[in-house]
Amino acid sequence: MESFPQTPRSRLRRRPQRGHYDAATVYRVLDAAVIAHVGYVIDGQPFVTPTAFWRETDVLYWHGSAASRMLRTQAERIPVSLTVTHLDGFVLARSGFNHSLCYRSVMAFGEASPVEDPAEKRRVLDAFVERLFPGRTRDIRQSTGQELKATSVMSMRIEEAAAKIRDGGVHDDEEDYALPCWAGVIPVTMRVGRVRPDDRVIAGTPIPAGLAPYEPGAPLDDVLAETARRGY
Amino acid sequence: MESFPQTPRSRLRRRPQRGHYDAATVYRVLDAAVIAHVGYVIDGQPFVTPTAFWRETDVLYWHGSAASRMLRTQAERIPVSLTVTHLDGFVLARSGFNHSLCYRSVMAFGEASPVEDPAEKRRVLDAFVERLFPGRTRDIRQSTGQELKATSVMSMRIEEAAAKIRDGGVHDDEEDYALPCWAGVIPVTMRVGRVRPDDRVIAGTPIPAGLAPYEPGAPLDDVLAETARRGY
Repeated sequence: MESFPQTPRSRLRRRPQRGHYDAATVYRVLDAAVIAHVGYVIDGQPFVTPTAFWRETDVLYWHGSAASRMLRTQAERIPVSLTVTHLDGFVLARSGFNHSLCYRSVMAFGEASPVEDPAEKRRVLDAFVERLFPGRTRDIRQSTGQELKATSVMSMRIEEAAAKIRDGGVHDDEEDYALPCWAGVIPVTMRVGRVRPDDRVIAGTPIPAGLAPYEPGAPLDDVLAETARRGY
Repeated sequence: MESFPQTPRSRLRRRPQRGHYDAATVYRVLDAAVIAHVGYVIDGQPFVTPTAFWRETDVLYWHGSAASRMLRTQAERIPVSLTVTHLDGFVLARSGFNHSLCYRSVMAFGEASPVEDPAEKRRVLDAFVERLFPGRTRDIRQSTGQELKATSVMSMRIEEAAAKIRDGGVHDDEEDYALPCWAGVIPVTMRVGRVRPDDRVIAGTPIPAGLAPYEPGAPLDDVLAETARRGY
């Protein structure tokens, strides 16, 4: 898949110059995120649930309790949408109208479908842990059959997706540049903090080498790109 | 409004101990965010659009181009949901099943309704600028009638809302604490970067005093709480 199809559902009408449909751009924005917002409909009412997600080729996965209303509903193979957004900054222009945000987002469409085979469920759940924390499935206690039963995993092959990216600086109306008004960009970045070991870690147990990318102050984007490269 | 009603639509079934329905908690989570994910339905298809939003008492506002499909659809007073999520960290437990995320989220429900009166539109748009950048509407060129016409503003009185918060540390099964496995929390925080002035700012124009909360390294949560206090 080089590029996703542009359809009435996915094509950007507003500011089409900010739209990207190539898989590389779509995946880069998705892979920099941990949480997605999944949209679905129950009796005409839209619900938007934030949930951890991960990607494998053109399939997105999310999971939760087998008792979850969201997952029980989605198991009926209903149309869903999954949106990921990164806020990157504030653009302060010389008029309110030209104020803006810097952001990267992806809106992806498809049909939700449950992962039912227990072996496949175990494989994709392990892949999720490895994707975030390379090597971790070798260190932790393996999932029990009961735990797998209590966990629903949903998948969605991306039928259509569009990335929308606004970066760069201030764009003012030409005549407004003469105003004695400060303008500029205030960037914001999701950053890793200092790791807090659990009180009951057995003395002498080191922080696993696979967590090395989580350096204090590192942008989470960079960390997730690195762990995705290292993970299996 | 002390507390939002718990209904089948808004009540948390999974992990009810993480649910909060009091307005103070709901507003605190909303006010720490700039971007919300708005869910709406067109012909049975759920859409989730990320958009800047702001709050005034129990009314949420968002805006965009008058030509936007999202806003034209929502102007029909359809049911919408608006979700805000903050990722606060990764919880690494001794089993995959007990891995978790720290987060704060709000899911709010209501009916979208356009702000049509031009004076009210100007007032709420100015309030949005002031909410983020106290004092800024005095520095910038005021909106023209044409700009106001080109901008749609949507409002939603919150009918129901629930906050869901997961904080704290690792919770493992008792027998797993004996494992020689590292466990702990990796916090993540959205932080302000170094301000980048626009190249064409007239020499000698200072950074406005109202932007003082945007100190490099400051958590965006704290900045937004402070600017909301200062804004009009």
